[in-house]
Amino acid sequence: MGAEMIKIAVLGYGVVGSGVVEVIERNHAEISRKAGDEVSVKYILDLRDFPGDPHEDKIVHDFDRIMEDDEVSVLCEVMGGVGPAYQYTKRALSAGKSVCTSNKELVAMHGAELLALASANHCNYMFEASVGGGIPIIRAVNSALTAERIQAVTGILNGTTNYILTKMAKEGVDYCEALKQAQALGYAERNPAADVEGADACRKLAILASLMTGRNVSTDRIYVEGITKVSREDLEYARIAEMAVKPLVLGSVREDGSVLAMVAPFMVPLDHPLARVDDVFNGVLVTGNMLGDAMFYGRGAGKLPTASAVAADVVDCAKHPGKTVWCFWNQEEAQVADVADTQRRFFVRARAAQREAVEKAFPGGQVFFREDREDFGLLTRTMVEREFEAGYKGLGDAVLSRLRVL
Amino acid sequence: MGAEMIKIAVLGYGVVGSGVVEVIERNHAEISRKAGDEVSVKYILDLRDFPGDPHEDKIVHDFDRIMEDDEVSVLCEVMGGVGPAYQYTKRALSAGKSVCTSNKELVAMHGAELLALASANHCNYMFEASVGGGIPIIRAVNSALTAERIQAVTGILNGTTNYILTKMAKEGVDYCEALKQAQALGYAERNPAADVEGADACRKLAILASLMTGRNVSTDRIYVEGITKVSREDLEYARIAEMAVKPLVLGSVREDGSVLAMVAPFMVPLDHPLARVDDVFNGVLVTGNMLGDAMFYGRGAGKLPTASAVAADVVDCAKHPGKTVWCFWNQEEAQVADVADTQRRFFVRARAAQREAVEKAFPGGQVFFREDREDFGLLTRTMVEREFEAGYKGLGDAVLSRLRVL
Repeated sequence: MGAEMIKIAVLGYGVVGSGVVEVIERNHAEISRKAGDEVSVKYILDLRDFPGDPHEDKIVHDFDRIMEDDEVSVLCEVMGGVGPAYQYTKRALSAGKSVCTSNKELVAMHGAELLALASANHCNYMFEASVGGGIPIIRAVNSALTAERIQAVTGILNGTTNYILTKMAKEGVDYCEALKQAQALGYAERNPAADVEGADACRKLAILASLMTGRNVSTDRIYVEGITKVSREDLEYARIAEMAVKPLVLGSVREDGSVLAMVAPFMVPLDHPLARVDDVFNGVLVTGNMLGDAMFYGRGAGKLPTASAVAADVVDCAKHPGKTVWCFWNQEEAQVADVADTQRRFFVRARAAQREAVEKAFPGGQVFFREDREDFGLLTRTMVEREFEAGYKGLGDAVLSRLRVL
Repeated sequence: MGAEMIKIAVLGYGVVGSGVVEVIERNHAEISRKAGDEVSVKYILDLRDFPGDPHEDKIVHDFDRIMEDDEVSVLCEVMGGVGPAYQYTKRALSAGKSVCTSNKELVAMHGAELLALASANHCNYMFEASVGGGIPIIRAVNSALTAERIQAVTGILNGTTNYILTKMAKEGVDYCEALKQAQALGYAERNPAADVEGADACRKLAILASLMTGRNVSTDRIYVEGITKVSREDLEYARIAEMAVKPLVLGSVREDGSVLAMVAPFMVPLDHPLARVDDVFNGVLVTGNMLGDAMFYGRGAGKLPTASAVAADVVDCAKHPGKTVWCFWNQEEAQVADVADTQRRFFVRARAAQREAVEKAFPGGQVFFREDREDFGLLTRTMVEREFEAGYKGLGDAVLSRLRVL
């Protein structure tokens, strides 16, 4: 200790950035003990000044100040976005300074490249906080379940949409009302598109799927469906059918080595472990070929849980000076399977008056009614998605909505 | 690769030992990729011969053969027990050979000493498989949640007793019938004492509590209560009160730095994440001061999940030659808190005829009835355990059973 102190710089003094400073201060003893060396924040990069802030003296506006200081060995990039964050990360890694980040957008887009750059410069690019907040899911896949062939990840990785669907199910409110409540509580942003349309979950899945396979699964090759079309009525049928509706990500490696990756709301049987992951909580089920299923559950967002994950990355960097710890994500593109070719059951909600046509289109299904009997729900048999979609579209306005079933 | 191959020896060719050989063979590509080097089994130590076994040529009967072979850098000790396993482990570590184990008895008893020995000899003593089978809970505490002050672990760490209590709750059978079924399915041993009396869970808690605090929490200082006294009637009341009965381990660090460690059946509210961990599954809730609660869930036992955890330790040893990775468990004894001083709610089942006396002893409790009304259930207010016990004992045979409430 002492001479060998680990000095870090925090890039971006927003919610997560101030969280990182707080975690490193409050858990200084634990962190230094685990790092094997004293860890302290030397610089905080931000465009703004923070007069009166207890860390005012650490604020700098010029990234070069950090780059020129050889004492700084680890940077925490918690700015978000792909503009300056990408440039700063490349410059730091090229100079052999490790970078720990919560920036899922940047990791999803340039993770493979940045990992290769870190490896070439004997430093680390770490991103535990980019998926699942404080849940150590990246470490589970990267450094804990290392004797497993990971066959699938199935998870709830977006707290905002999970909160909205939980609220709709528990209180019988519609999507707009639940969204409004989520916004009032700060769980959803004023412009909620990234959450409710699935882009946020898609980035996280891109990262997990890439780590699972070791090849790049880019976001634009992932099938994404948001939750905005899920209705109060759908949730009522889910309850009757003893299911929950959950905003899922699915990543799996198929027999032929191709990857199935999709983001969509699913009906999930109540006895499935993910069915009980409610409110803003996240949960990820990892399926290994030896282990079977293991689930990781916790707060997927929030200042301190996310900051704690960034700080855990700092500890790992401190413990492995000059050594690249993670390097299992190549730039080669993975072969991505077509969702239309996959098989599963589907839920259809349709007008009661057209029941005969609907049952004819999906023979052997299980039918459910609500009290008013104006519509009905049908759970199809297992079928190929392409065939289901053809049947569904063929029914025109006899059908009101559809959901996949896990 | 090639010249630097990692050669290992497996000590004990029983269920877990043959699992380790199988995992390393079947997932050879993944394991070697993660280890950064080819991993292969060179010796299997067992007293028996295995004529016709595909690995017959690797069987040796003499531990010295392994010790004398400088190519062998990692040993998997999956023999169990503390006799020869302890001696072999000490000899291996003293010679700088790393040891990975599933032997919770040995880790609970001599973990601190063996970690110190590993550290002194620049090698590793690793025991992911000793707690929670394939669930990477040791890594979560040791190497993932490294920026957290871990305040508590609350978990179901014994699959046998969880199976028995789940069976009793779901099918209304009594303890003996559920135990018989567990034995028929191979979930319980012919002599089930280590599971049902809590010794197995106690060892696992000793390991977790020691890692949490960094000081030694030995098994004989942990409060242990088995599940043998839990009755069908208790489970019926639990259902009425919207609770489950679960075989828990509790470890927490108190304000004064002392550790509370106990193993006992608890009533758990149904909306608690552990209430849904059923059958032979394990689950551990880790509470960190930044993260809040995170839960880890999966198969806590079984040949391949356990072997997968041992093999993950081998990967870690291979990745860190000459470096001790885990060393946060000192031989200094932790200060252990007295369970009698802790506060919580309790459940009491008592004879209906003596209701007045029971309600007088526990004023302000919540009363529940079953259909026959011969007995009743009472949930007390929060009270100090010592006072509860005094009140409970004072009621003599008016009371039939009691359980703690989480």
